[in-house]
Amino acid sequence: MQQNKPKLTVVKIGGNVIDNPLALTAFLADFSALEGFKILVHGGGKIATKTAEGLGITAVFYEGRRITDKPMLDVAVMTYAGLINKDVTAQLQAFGSNAMGFTGADGNLILSEKRKNAAVDFGFVGDVVAVNTDLLKVIIQQNIVPVFCAITHDGAGQLLNTNADTIASTLSVACSTHFDVRLMYCFEKKGVLMDSENEDSVIKNLTFGAYETLKAQGIIHSGMLPKLENCFNAINQGVTQIGIGSPGMLKGSDFTLVTA
Amino acid sequence: MQQNKPKLTVVKIGGNVIDNPLALTAFLADFSALEGFKILVHGGGKIATKTAEGLGITAVFYEGRRITDKPMLDVAVMTYAGLINKDVTAQLQAFGSNAMGFTGADGNLILSEKRKNAAVDFGFVGDVVAVNTDLLKVIIQQNIVPVFCAITHDGAGQLLNTNADTIASTLSVACSTHFDVRLMYCFEKKGVLMDSENEDSVIKNLTFGAYETLKAQGIIHSGMLPKLENCFNAINQGVTQIGIGSPGMLKGSDFTLVTA
Repeated sequence: MQQNKPKLTVVKIGGNVIDNPLALTAFLADFSALEGFKILVHGGGKIATKTAEGLGITAVFYEGRRITDKPMLDVAVMTYAGLINKDVTAQLQAFGSNAMGFTGADGNLILSEKRKNAAVDFGFVGDVVAVNTDLLKVIIQQNIVPVFCAITHDGAGQLLNTNADTIASTLSVACSTHFDVRLMYCFEKKGVLMDSENEDSVIKNLTFGAYETLKAQGIIHSGMLPKLENCFNAINQGVTQIGIGSPGMLKGSDFTLVTA
Repeated sequence: MQQNKPKLTVVKIGGNVIDNPLALTAFLADFSALEGFKILVHGGGKIATKTAEGLGITAVFYEGRRITDKPMLDVAVMTYAGLINKDVTAQLQAFGSNAMGFTGADGNLILSEKRKNAAVDFGFVGDVVAVNTDLLKVIIQQNIVPVFCAITHDGAGQLLNTNADTIASTLSVACSTHFDVRLMYCFEKKGVLMDSENEDSVIKNLTFGAYETLKAQGIIHSGMLPKLENCFNAINQGVTQIGIGSPGMLKGSDFTLVTA
């Protein structure tokens, strides 16, 4: 059924790439060389923390989780939507990709709602409600490469900090109506590992059945569990395939291919 | 000849509006209510200076003119393209305008080149070279309201600080190929004044002939001269009319109408 849809690659990079200028530029060259329609989603990295420290803004935590108060949201908007997003966009332009940087407020592309929590107010954190897929499709078809940072809006004038992994999967699911979508999560490891101490133990193919088995055996655990649940949700909602690996996977290094 | 072109209003607001949250929100409500296609261009205001001070970055001047070194450019990108641009975009969304915030790097919409000066290097300051009018037209025709900050790029990966008035006039001239463009400069006065001490002495209509006479008489002087030269240049290059006045001119208060 999906053969007739144009291909779209959604790539998410995390802070480890953002924090290293040389690695970032090398990654953007590789990303730019990917054929076909594409979207980049980037996380934040340490620049936000450094900027907050510089401005004398103290991070507030509740049970180990960061609270995004107004000063911290402002820093996130400055660094994610300003400094990082526009640097990435300008660099992609230099590599020949017609990049365009976005928050969810731009073109109402990603609408979210402030997270409600009975026990604690996590502040200006938003969970995605809707993607403006029709407009995003028009933009992509202009050969624009959308570059999303992890800031969305609530439609009532409030910007909200949003998880970049979730933005990547939500955009991928939304775009699967019009495109044959593959999603690539670039992070600090080469993929999902059989042995977390051994970078060469990458599980090359991971079906839901295999995942359930490895989870039961305790081989896949901790932070990989929500990441993979998120992946299988995206696949169940129309995303064709998902890669998890290091930025090197754009050039053919081993990675974990997650499929139904 | 221009009757058949759709109307497009380009509005530029300066730091005096940006610096006052209540005035900004009131202005954005009025701007949002303007009929037809529109573009907003915004300046910086004091947030950049405050942020630079907070981060311990010292402004460097040469003969009274600011030098945009790398730390200061980063602050400009953070505050103009990040904090201000995204706040304005989110607020316009709340007022029902499908705003989309841009630097010149986004979609290669405004290409500039680093200013060359034999005597002194003003740093990362760019003069506009080209506008990606075809893409801008497509965006506007999607009923998107572009919101430009005063950051452009050189096409080789470098962001550049650029004069917001110039961005407004250059965009207006470029768009006049496809649209019947009126440009509105909102600043701290009610318009071009016959008597700079009297806010009620607004010159309501200013032709180039009248301007030449008033300039010779010393009635129009100082900072208004380059502003008006810029206006007449834009009119000579296809912009239909230009208004200069306070933000109140969007709701009908007196302003100076500049025409050929």
